[in-house]
Amino acid sequence: MEKFEVKAYGAESPVAELKLININRREATAKDIEIAILFCGVCHSDLHTARNDWGGTVYPSAPGHEIVGRVTKVGSDVTKFKVGDLAAVGCMVDSCQTCPSCAQDLEQYCQNGFVGTYNGKDKHLGGRTFGGYSEKIVVDEHFVLRVPENLDPAATAPLLCAGITTWSPLRHWNVGEHSTVAVVGLGGLGHMAIKLAKALGAKVTLFSRSPGKEQDALELGADEVVISTDDAQMAGVTGKFDLIIDTVPYVHDVNHYIPSLSTNGTLVLVGYLGPLDPMLNSVPLIMGRKSVAGSLIGGIAETQEMLDFCGKHNIVSEIEVVNIQDINEAYERMLKSDVRYRFVIDMASLK
Amino acid sequence: MEKFEVKAYGAESPVAELKLININRREATAKDIEIAILFCGVCHSDLHTARNDWGGTVYPSAPGHEIVGRVTKVGSDVTKFKVGDLAAVGCMVDSCQTCPSCAQDLEQYCQNGFVGTYNGKDKHLGGRTFGGYSEKIVVDEHFVLRVPENLDPAATAPLLCAGITTWSPLRHWNVGEHSTVAVVGLGGLGHMAIKLAKALGAKVTLFSRSPGKEQDALELGADEVVISTDDAQMAGVTGKFDLIIDTVPYVHDVNHYIPSLSTNGTLVLVGYLGPLDPMLNSVPLIMGRKSVAGSLIGGIAETQEMLDFCGKHNIVSEIEVVNIQDINEAYERMLKSDVRYRFVIDMASLK
Ligand SMILES: [Zn+2]
Ligand SMILES: [Zn+2]
Ligand SMILES: [Zn+2]
Ligand SMILES: [Zn+2]
Repeated sequence: MEKFEVKAYGAESPVAELKLININRREATAKDIEIAILFCGVCHSDLHTARNDWGGTVYPSAPGHEIVGRVTKVGSDVTKFKVGDLAAVGCMVDSCQTCPSCAQDLEQYCQNGFVGTYNGKDKHLGGRTFGGYSEKIVVDEHFVLRVPENLDPAATAPLLCAGITTWSPLRHWNVGEHSTVAVVGLGGLGHMAIKLAKALGAKVTLFSRSPGKEQDALELGADEVVISTDDAQMAGVTGKFDLIIDTVPYVHDVNHYIPSLSTNGTLVLVGYLGPLDPMLNSVPLIMGRKSVAGSLIGGIAETQEMLDFCGKHNIVSEIEVVNIQDINEAYERMLKSDVRYRFVIDMASLK
Repeated sequence: MEKFEVKAYGAESPVAELKLININRREATAKDIEIAILFCGVCHSDLHTARNDWGGTVYPSAPGHEIVGRVTKVGSDVTKFKVGDLAAVGCMVDSCQTCPSCAQDLEQYCQNGFVGTYNGKDKHLGGRTFGGYSEKIVVDEHFVLRVPENLDPAATAPLLCAGITTWSPLRHWNVGEHSTVAVVGLGGLGHMAIKLAKALGAKVTLFSRSPGKEQDALELGADEVVISTDDAQMAGVTGKFDLIIDTVPYVHDVNHYIPSLSTNGTLVLVGYLGPLDPMLNSVPLIMGRKSVAGSLIGGIAETQEMLDFCGKHNIVSEIEVVNIQDINEAYERMLKSDVRYRFVIDMASLK
């Protein structure tokens, strides 16, 4: 298969800093779109993959799955895009497209495993896929999204992971004008959850462990902030929420939030991967027909729906733009939650 | 308030055997129905309450919440029943009837707490309510169910707890002709879950730890039995079930069943009350938008719906009829799961 070389930033080992590397991209096939990357958001998953925190990273590894760019080439069968269009790529670049999940536009739950935008098994060139910390990317048009022209392209990039990860549960659990939604954690995901839930018409509450985030949350659109370490404030929201979107990425006590769910309410985990410690108690679930669920990013059609919604409602992420040369420092700051609320790399800095 | 004395069987302490006692019933008020009890099913909750296993039992305690009888008196405002009708009472005899849950026919999730048929706070006579191990019971007509005349009244009794406890999640999670349902555990609840799911048109699988129950499960209507300790059999049902009804009453590893849920599938706990030990892992929930939920009995309107459905489909419980004098022995056998599948007391034996 024909290929070409592009510059990228990647890690050579779990302990190496990211640095300039060269990677290969395939020449666009009939179904492919070639994109010159303008901006790439920085997700916690980028850092975890670069450092092999979850195992399975193959090196060199170039992360990045919040990608916005301009189309520079289209294959002969491509119908959705033309050269010069704004385009975006999120967490997936391929899936089987035939299993029951794919058939329902749920590529994120592909029963044969979707191909991640980075560190996925590259069906074309072999080896692993490389992400958006690079000059260009070549992707099957099914996995390329249209970007509303009225949105700032840099601030749009995080919608491709942080946005869709919170949009999908909001839609799946039918959040709308009569919904009461709570968000646990105010970071990249949490701040998008507030904006999107609010724009869908819900009453939105932020659960925060510390009082410092109140002003920010209200400015983002939250109707109230509940300090989750304050027993009286917690008692004040007993039975209140139809849906709690829990974005906290580390282990924490989920039981603490269950009493604030309404009858039939659901707490959906989108951040934390691992055993629920302390143990989840079934009693409050049974006594109110409550659920604890998980949700992973979103399907391609749903991602397009979210981008179109954001275009209509002028919703983007709150970002801090950095150069690719600053990525290692950005990772350190991200680990300390020292970012409001997402780093986005200006890929012009890679030139 | 006027009252009268009836014979009952009850426990005087956590360690006492059940024996003949006398209890008071109120004279039927305008909204009440007085029922002469014909049959009363024997539920695990009866035993746990009699022995104070959950704390909070006030003695003497007369259990029983699977009650079928004949109406012997109706209050002046009663419209649904007349003397001589077959009638049934389940797990609840009162609730606030004004909170949002009650307003949605979800009395079981009454935000002010429903009044249990036994050991509940009696709003009329003070003290605690007494259950169906007695000659008569007097109940607000809102909490009295009509019983289809074509069903065996003895075998109908367990529908009032075991039946509705499995019916409610089947209905809430929209089980129908295209559903695949699994049931964990084949006891009083499990055998009703199989019958009801099958009659709703679902494909039904029983998860069993031991091969001995296969023939029974198939006769009850299951399409297949999967031995849950057999890794190959478990692998064969990966991603299969829309809904798993987990009736196991003791602590067990819920994680074991999650891989067999389909994308968007739910495992609903109806038997086990307590911490999920070992810890529930969020990863398989997130990777398939799966949920773990709880469900408690069912509302009054839903209970009537279930009884009408059972009348139409000729569904009753599999029972072993015992005399009230044999209740202590029945409890011991129930603890050893030595019953297929529900004891029902012939209350004529109390006379
Ligand atoms: Zn991400
Ligand atoms: Zn697929
Ligand atoms: Zn019961
Ligand atoms: Zn109520």
